[in-house]
Amino acid sequence: MIDLHTVPTPNGHKISIALEELGLEYNVIPYDISKGDQFKPELLALNPNNKLPVIVDHDPISGGPEPMVVFETGAILLYLAEKTGKLISKDASIRFQQIQWLMFQVASVGPLQGQAHHFIRYARVQQDYARERYVNESLRQCRVLETQLQDQDYLAGDYSIADIACWPWLRALPLIDIHLDKDFPNLYAWFQRIDARPAVQRGKDLIHGWVYQLPPNFKMELDEKTWSYSFGEEQYRKR
Amino acid sequence: MIDLHTVPTPNGHKISIALEELGLEYNVIPYDISKGDQFKPELLALNPNNKLPVIVDHDPISGGPEPMVVFETGAILLYLAEKTGKLISKDASIRFQQIQWLMFQVASVGPLQGQAHHFIRYARVQQDYARERYVNESLRQCRVLETQLQDQDYLAGDYSIADIACWPWLRALPLIDIHLDKDFPNLYAWFQRIDARPAVQRGKDLIHGWVYQLPPNFKMELDEKTWSYSFGEEQYRKR
Ligand SMILES: N[C@@H](CCC(=O)N[C@@H](CS)C(=O)NCC(=O)O)C(=O)O
Ligand SMILES: N[C@@H](CCC(=O)N[C@@H](CS)C(=O)NCC(=O)O)C(=O)O
Repeated sequence: MIDLHTVPTPNGHKISIALEELGLEYNVIPYDISKGDQFKPELLALNPNNKLPVIVDHDPISGGPEPMVVFETGAILLYLAEKTGKLISKDASIRFQQIQWLMFQVASVGPLQGQAHHFIRYARVQQDYARERYVNESLRQCRVLETQLQDQDYLAGDYSIADIACWPWLRALPLIDIHLDKDFPNLYAWFQRIDARPAVQRGKDLIHGWVYQLPPNFKMELDEKTWSYSFGEEQYRKR
Repeated sequence: MIDLHTVPTPNGHKISIALEELGLEYNVIPYDISKGDQFKPELLALNPNNKLPVIVDHDPISGGPEPMVVFETGAILLYLAEKTGKLISKDASIRFQQIQWLMFQVASVGPLQGQAHHFIRYARVQQDYARERYVNESLRQCRVLETQLQDQDYLAGDYSIADIACWPWLRALPLIDIHLDKDFPNLYAWFQRIDARPAVQRGKDLIHGWVYQLPPNFKMELDEKTWSYSFGEEQYRKR
């Protein structure tokens, strides 16, 4: 059995989707980061970086008696692929292409589209320069993916952890007013192809993310405490 | 033989250091991103994401006749570790800890410290909010690493690709006025431990990065063309 400590965000959904695709049994432990749950000592003991998701596998690939704890979605996806031999190619040359697109997601799509969401939806002062910088970067990333999907259905080889890593983030693009159906036909077709998978629907609905229903460029009004947990003193205080 | 397409930056140095540690033979193809070399068609054919470093391995682990191309430093480091069986543990439970700290570097340290460098050293308009946001995040990451290194010499198990990924980025911290020797004793000891390795010295000096000699918070004055390649029209134009 796998314990999944998670949140209803793109990073959380990557892992619930992968678990659904793989048909692994898991047990959900939901967190509310608007209440600062990510600083609970139980979570910090699993991940000193106060971030979700985290898995605890009680039947770990090490074969040892100790459960294995893995954080960082990129590491969790590689772990689940290795555990099952699925969602990754057995051919080394395709496997490393899948790993490199997984890395493109974790190193660029996630952190930099995340900044676009921050400056559009959360920052309290109008920040035109930063907003433009990260929206431009998000559009650039869409063009890179659009090119990659020109002659193929998935990012590399068959459907893999690379596609699963990207999909929940591209799903959030309308919130920053980027619409795949308008400007990125290959990427939109890829998005729909994955959206049609029942496991993807189950994984994304597992913990419901109401935020996805918001209109483009919707500015969040966070109370002081909530702001502080994610972007203020509580986030940056010494622990 | 491995071709290493690279630049004298933290991301470039991760790979030259790993190659030196592993004693692999390689051939350096240097790029100048201030001149827009990252948009050369030869590079875009290897990496549609116009980023360096990229490796081309003519003796690939696939065993096939085709060379393997790998971009994204996280993927390249995993590739080199798999190729040699070195710089990563054979024990799955330690191996995944190393992979998760590698992911912490590629998903947080690199992209977010990179934003601190941007707003301190490159942005043309004073951006206090963004500057503070990313400096705070860089300091938070240092605290996470400081905690992790409390009772151990390396990030997970023995010296590994996780340490190699982090070291060149922590080396650049003085440029954004963060000084490990002052506030982070464990992290500073770790830094010195790695700095003392001859392969690390060779890897970091392979292509010389003059930028490391600049004083803290030094503002770069880029000409229009150079700005455009990295942060303006040329970076974001359709290709
Ligand atoms: N690079 C991490 C990012 C995870 C992440 O940013 N998680 C967010 C939720 S989507 C979080 O836990 N934020 C709480 C915090 O930073 O305090 C990963 O891929 O796992
Ligand atoms: N996530 C990438 C980042 C690589 C990266 O940002 N490379 C920079 C040099 S340090 C680059 O090539 N920049 C050129 C550009 O973006 O146009 C990796 O880890 O390989």
